[in-house]
Amino acid sequence: MNRAEIMAGWLPETATPKVSAEHFAPSNIALCKYWGKRDTELNLPVNASLSVSLDQLGSRTRVEPIESVSDEVWLNGMRQPADSRFASRVSAFIDLFRSRHPELAFRVHSVNNIPTAAGLASSASGFAALTKALDDAFGLGLSPTQQSVAARLGSGSACRSLFDGFVEWQMGVREDGLDSHGVRLEQTWPGLCIGLLKVDESEKSVDSRAGMQRTKETAHLYQSWPLQAAADLSRLQQAIETRDFALLGSVAEQNALSMHATMIASWPPLLYWQPGSVAAMQKVWRLRAEGLAVYFTMDAGPNLKLLFEAASRPALEAQFPGLEIVQPFGV
Amino acid sequence: MNRAEIMAGWLPETATPKVSAEHFAPSNIALCKYWGKRDTELNLPVNASLSVSLDQLGSRTRVEPIESVSDEVWLNGMRQPADSRFASRVSAFIDLFRSRHPELAFRVHSVNNIPTAAGLASSASGFAALTKALDDAFGLGLSPTQQSVAARLGSGSACRSLFDGFVEWQMGVREDGLDSHGVRLEQTWPGLCIGLLKVDESEKSVDSRAGMQRTKETAHLYQSWPLQAAADLSRLQQAIETRDFALLGSVAEQNALSMHATMIASWPPLLYWQPGSVAAMQKVWRLRAEGLAVYFTMDAGPNLKLLFEAASRPALEAQFPGLEIVQPFGV
Repeated sequence: MNRAEIMAGWLPETATPKVSAEHFAPSNIALCKYWGKRDTELNLPVNASLSVSLDQLGSRTRVEPIESVSDEVWLNGMRQPADSRFASRVSAFIDLFRSRHPELAFRVHSVNNIPTAAGLASSASGFAALTKALDDAFGLGLSPTQQSVAARLGSGSACRSLFDGFVEWQMGVREDGLDSHGVRLEQTWPGLCIGLLKVDESEKSVDSRAGMQRTKETAHLYQSWPLQAAADLSRLQQAIETRDFALLGSVAEQNALSMHATMIASWPPLLYWQPGSVAAMQKVWRLRAEGLAVYFTMDAGPNLKLLFEAASRPALEAQFPGLEIVQPFGV
Repeated sequence: MNRAEIMAGWLPETATPKVSAEHFAPSNIALCKYWGKRDTELNLPVNASLSVSLDQLGSRTRVEPIESVSDEVWLNGMRQPADSRFASRVSAFIDLFRSRHPELAFRVHSVNNIPTAAGLASSASGFAALTKALDDAFGLGLSPTQQSVAARLGSGSACRSLFDGFVEWQMGVREDGLDSHGVRLEQTWPGLCIGLLKVDESEKSVDSRAGMQRTKETAHLYQSWPLQAAADLSRLQQAIETRDFALLGSVAEQNALSMHATMIASWPPLLYWQPGSVAAMQKVWRLRAEGLAVYFTMDAGPNLKLLFEAASRPALEAQFPGLEIVQPFGV
């Protein structure tokens, strides 16, 4: 089954795009990571994952029909070459919505208020916002769950950025992936803090799509990953249910390090860490040994995302000047 | 079965120690790592391993009977406190040889010409040299294979330091471990170079004995390690048989990184790397991308051991000033 077939069922024959539409979607930080696909065409994951959305940090994306033979894609105010990886992915994604109107071209403006491609999952928020904008522009009226399925076709973890708060990406069992989408958890966690610690803002040399594929194909240790992820997800649900921060933090940190471990065990080796990443990890461990309840998670990049509670916020601000802190559930 | 029972069978009732004995044993660098024990008392490994001995780099150890109620242990010219971890391990090891003469006390002088506890496996060469010295002092006349079994009781990887060249530690199947010892491979590799790249000489905070135990108990990914190690060992044997350096280097590097990956996936996380370790790895990868055939391996510490052939030696010396280079099989 291919992506176009999935979407085709949701496209009414008569729908035509409105003039333009603009939507925002938050970035999301996974506490249990998505790492490895069982279907690369449909972005169906090997394991379920769980994230928290970053409230106001994310992507705002506008689409508008234009008189042209090809799309125009702008990212953070910069026109992207049509043959760039980003523009190609966006155009291919729009194709899924315009299969009944292949003559249409669009201008897409996407603005992230987070660093692009530095491990802060901007493609997730970008494709989620684009999905909402295209749904609106084409007047499809998809439900949030259907939007989540559609967003997943653009970028796997985008399916989690359709929702606020804690989101579980249920891996599903269907071959067409219609049961593989984000589901918002009921629970909230006022005072939960996520601190974005930037070690390096440079573009990564291997994107996460290629990285997870290499890991799955070459790392022996990856064989143990699906069972670990399932166990971690279950422990995270328990931590959220009982507001057990030490459990939440320790499971999230071990899950992230285990994902990086599978990359490190790949061939050729895949190490997203910079020397500064190691220094930052060592600092977190030292602070924790000194009694500060702080943990970290990392995505396919060199940066750390610190996890702590509001009571620790002053101490963390003192230790990491300039730390950007998000409280996804308020105070 | 305990260690004393294993050794007791080799101790003749009448043997008394000579005045003193002194022996040297080389350090060894594993190309397929020993990581995880199936028996912590007897140091029986979860997986077979394969190393290369470092020729003249290692430990020289002298034992002499003294008139005292307790042993004296000297390391690199420094008297070690009787309650220090090192002195305790040495005395406990001597106990295995003096069980019929518990009244005997010894002075032990061990000198390493490699940095101690910086990931250069000095305990392996130290216990191997101590085993040879005690065998001599007690007039036991153990075969090299028996000495390898005995050395393993002191420190697992010491069983490989009884031999020069390439050494396989056959894991064995017996509960008493008498079939778990080093075996020297016939093959040699003239021109093979090992470069000791020191990132940090400080003592490590978690010794490898504790590290492998934590990994085995807490890292989900460790479950995939034994099969990986078996596959790597077989590929290394093939590389040595066919003198395929790219195969030797790539398998050794992936094996070492996978061992570190299992540590990183442990809880609490076990990261022996320093920021400088990451910088050194990145430099090796950059040089390799530029066409230089250089790989690395790492033990439970921050330092790298570079693997290359003699033709690349000038380039490596230029890139890493002060690199200590060993050619275990000569030119």
